[in-house]
Amino acid sequence: MKGNQKKLKIIPLGGLEQIGMNITAFEYEDSIIVVDCGLSFPEDDMLGIDLVIPDVTYLKENISKVKGFFITHGHEDHIGALPYVLKEINVPVYATKLTVGIIENKLTEHDLLRSTKRKIVKHGQSINCGAFRVEFIKTNHSIADAAALAIYSPAGIVIHTGDFKVDYTPVFGDAIDLQRLGELGKKGVLALMCDSTNAERKGFTASERTVGKTFDNIFAEHKSTRIIIATFASNVDRVQQIINSAYKYGRKVVVEGRSMVNIINTASELGYLDIPNRTLIDIEQMKNYPDEQMVLITTGSQGESMAALSRMAANLHRKVTIKPGDTVIFSSNPIPGNEKAVSKVINELYEKGADVIFQDAHVSGHACQEEIKLIYSLVRPKYAIPVHGEYRHLMAHKALAEDMGIDKKNIFVLQSGDVLELNEKSASVTGHVPTGAVLVDGLGVGDVGTIVLRDRQRLAEDGIMIIVIALERRSNRLMAGPDIVSRGFVYVRESEDLMDECRHVVEHSLDAAMDKKITDWSRLKNMVKDDLSDFLWKKTKRSPMLLPIIMEV
Amino acid sequence: MKGNQKKLKIIPLGGLEQIGMNITAFEYEDSIIVVDCGLSFPEDDMLGIDLVIPDVTYLKENISKVKGFFITHGHEDHIGALPYVLKEINVPVYATKLTVGIIENKLTEHDLLRSTKRKIVKHGQSINCGAFRVEFIKTNHSIADAAALAIYSPAGIVIHTGDFKVDYTPVFGDAIDLQRLGELGKKGVLALMCDSTNAERKGFTASERTVGKTFDNIFAEHKSTRIIIATFASNVDRVQQIINSAYKYGRKVVVEGRSMVNIINTASELGYLDIPNRTLIDIEQMKNYPDEQMVLITTGSQGESMAALSRMAANLHRKVTIKPGDTVIFSSNPIPGNEKAVSKVINELYEKGADVIFQDAHVSGHACQEEIKLIYSLVRPKYAIPVHGEYRHLMAHKALAEDMGIDKKNIFVLQSGDVLELNEKSASVTGHVPTGAVLVDGLGVGDVGTIVLRDRQRLAEDGIMIIVIALERRSNRLMAGPDIVSRGFVYVRESEDLMDECRHVVEHSLDAAMDKKITDWSRLKNMVKDDLSDFLWKKTKRSPMLLPIIMEV
Repeated sequence: MKGNQKKLKIIPLGGLEQIGMNITAFEYEDSIIVVDCGLSFPEDDMLGIDLVIPDVTYLKENISKVKGFFITHGHEDHIGALPYVLKEINVPVYATKLTVGIIENKLTEHDLLRSTKRKIVKHGQSINCGAFRVEFIKTNHSIADAAALAIYSPAGIVIHTGDFKVDYTPVFGDAIDLQRLGELGKKGVLALMCDSTNAERKGFTASERTVGKTFDNIFAEHKSTRIIIATFASNVDRVQQIINSAYKYGRKVVVEGRSMVNIINTASELGYLDIPNRTLIDIEQMKNYPDEQMVLITTGSQGESMAALSRMAANLHRKVTIKPGDTVIFSSNPIPGNEKAVSKVINELYEKGADVIFQDAHVSGHACQEEIKLIYSLVRPKYAIPVHGEYRHLMAHKALAEDMGIDKKNIFVLQSGDVLELNEKSASVTGHVPTGAVLVDGLGVGDVGTIVLRDRQRLAEDGIMIIVIALERRSNRLMAGPDIVSRGFVYVRESEDLMDECRHVVEHSLDAAMDKKITDWSRLKNMVKDDLSDFLWKKTKRSPMLLPIIMEV
Repeated sequence: MKGNQKKLKIIPLGGLEQIGMNITAFEYEDSIIVVDCGLSFPEDDMLGIDLVIPDVTYLKENISKVKGFFITHGHEDHIGALPYVLKEINVPVYATKLTVGIIENKLTEHDLLRSTKRKIVKHGQSINCGAFRVEFIKTNHSIADAAALAIYSPAGIVIHTGDFKVDYTPVFGDAIDLQRLGELGKKGVLALMCDSTNAERKGFTASERTVGKTFDNIFAEHKSTRIIIATFASNVDRVQQIINSAYKYGRKVVVEGRSMVNIINTASELGYLDIPNRTLIDIEQMKNYPDEQMVLITTGSQGESMAALSRMAANLHRKVTIKPGDTVIFSSNPIPGNEKAVSKVINELYEKGADVIFQDAHVSGHACQEEIKLIYSLVRPKYAIPVHGEYRHLMAHKALAEDMGIDKKNIFVLQSGDVLELNEKSASVTGHVPTGAVLVDGLGVGDVGTIVLRDRQRLAEDGIMIIVIALERRSNRLMAGPDIVSRGFVYVRESEDLMDECRHVVEHSLDAAMDKKITDWSRLKNMVKDDLSDFLWKKTKRSPMLLPIIMEV
């Protein structure tokens, strides 16, 4: 392979500058493979948006080259955009067993199961795909069956870690395959694309097993109360440990929350969960057991308003009522942005007399600084490309790579859309392809853009006032109105005077327009808007959206 | 005083269940005094709201009893509602010098300076007010001149700590007057109302002075770059320490951000800031000094989108451009809810090549567990009333009070509006007065309520569609329309087909109504709404607000 002058292109189409929407294209001559295809959740200013998917224009324009999707693990930020993208780019999907299982749930929802080729790949196995060979390497993460990928191209080997941590004592399956990473490093690795999420955190992420010990301790201390545990639906190993503690302490387990039930079903069908007989019971059977024999595992650890735990805390859950004495465990940390929502749920639980435990019952699924350094020391890549993180995380990762002896000019903190061309001789960003965020709102994909969002923000801020007038055809004589209707501006029943004044302002504008013989409707509308907007700002210091509508009668 | 059978009423009118909106009434026979009068900032679902003030109906209904406001310190959550409440309840305001200075800025803005009586009280001084005497006791906090209050009533002494920490080595003035607290404790204190903000945190809050050492270290390490420090405008001691380090390292200081400039002016006029000659320069003079001789102190430490630092980071600041090599220090922790906004600013700063320091340059202004215990051991109150905090903090505080030997039944975790009646013999909640949040939006105080907020939320989520038709008087014949206008729903120019279909749906509803001889306008409107809503949900899985308007011509 040495001496090959041609270059590999690495093109991240999302996932840099943010946590979420991970998708990276690898291109060599006529072959493109894509690693991950994730969604991101809407930012605070994306009002009404359900989810965000990457713009894959570049893949569509090169559709004949695209050979397959290689998915590192089953989290939404790595698989969530697949159903949308597969509708336009129908190529095979390669992933490990649990990951394929979770993807299949999504494909079924989108009625894409029959039309999508999936292939289950085992850790250690390789897939030939166009100019590439892709080897799946065992890693550890907060979801089972995560994989790093060794991507063999004629220009060299690239290792993409996916999301990972180093867990020497995982709950399910093997520890990360450090030997194989070392072996590949010895062979010579062109580039390492490594998880940056925890690059600002010192030390080593604790083993998932430590959480199991915490559960045992909490169960031992709370023998006489019901225990409710909120965690991430996809953390199958966490659920396994809760089941283990429940079984050990003679408790039955109820699972609540749609996403939790779905993932647990998939995981236990595929053999990723070991549930002792008669431990799992249906929520309807709960009444047959005393509190001290029950554990509820539930969604809602992020304070999501519609999730099961939030509904329990707000007394809106149809089947579970929080009682004084209940022990509620948050087996999670709030994801940045969710702190207040989580706090709200904690307060509501306390108000209902529950005891809330929100410390020490969680570990991260991402590598901290010492783990990242370990990977560098095994892989010893020529080039380092920090991935998966906001800019601050990528920069912290860059500093670590420098500490590990990577030449500063060989570290590439890329932006989404950058085309990095590289081989053993050299590497550089040679271009930029279009990327972006496509907003999904209900069934609409991409039909809400900047203009609609700006309108929603304006409406959210001060509401809307609609001014309707009817003008006679040709003569432009006022036939009816002005009628004024507002929503989200003031409570109209208590603001009748203000509404009357608004009507007078509009009448005055219309009169003035008539005097000036202005008949052009758009000028007329602008005059009304300007006068009313001035009046309202003076009177209320607010700027509702003003919408004059003229009807021709 | 012992043997008095009459009871003191303590009525928190806000500030429990949340951080913010602190206001508590103390009532004895015909006298009411009010401690603090704060605002809170709007929750995420209070769209378009500027700030929130407490409902003081109870005070208005007992206006003849109300003798004065006693303010513990100059933070918004303790003084921010004063200008609104004073308009309705014009009684004297008592506070320490800096606190009065900050309040006067507010009164000037609201044109209330002439009509409001203020009295500056020194630490150690007492004020007689109706049946009460109120002594101001020195404490430490993240704003200078904070006070605890000893409230003497015929039923006994209540100590209200205000917000505080124990700082043995404060930057300005004396340490908290622990001796006086001990002396009062020895005399016998009926009840202690103590700050709960950090009641979940173990240990002892570090001295403000430790931050000064951190600044010195950072200045020593960054001798060749410009230094920009973001902190809370009101933390005068923090600003003092930045100025000290700047002076020591031969740098000039520029202050940027309106609230920062205001407070620094007030603080230095009143002698709370000691600024060496020629250290403070105007932002316009900045160009005359090399980067390594400059320090900028700025607002925006919470990522507030309009604050100076955020505008610098986003390249929107008219006078300061972030350059590669700039050192930016966040001398603050994100307040819960602001994490994402702060992270956004940090990312933008990194992208512009700045070095960002966001660790170890801040200490809290609130007492941790060991400090709270210290206060209990000095004051040894009969009753404990945890204040200032969300329910989770009040509950953590309650556990501490129990540890400190307060009888469980003598600890009162109150809700806003509870009337706690107490004397040496007994204490109990005997009633509840109306309380609540009054929303301020622009010049409107209280004119935005649940209905308007619900409309704003709906508009924010899916926008609005307005359907206008003109009907002939009496005959109800369709004279014009239906015209359909939408905002915040879909991008109309790319959705003409959908809009046409909507028009057809409405026409069809109107025809059906005519066929059924339905002429009642509200029934007509409901039919149109129902049909259109069904159609849109099926077609888009969205629910814009639907607003049919009928004009009579």
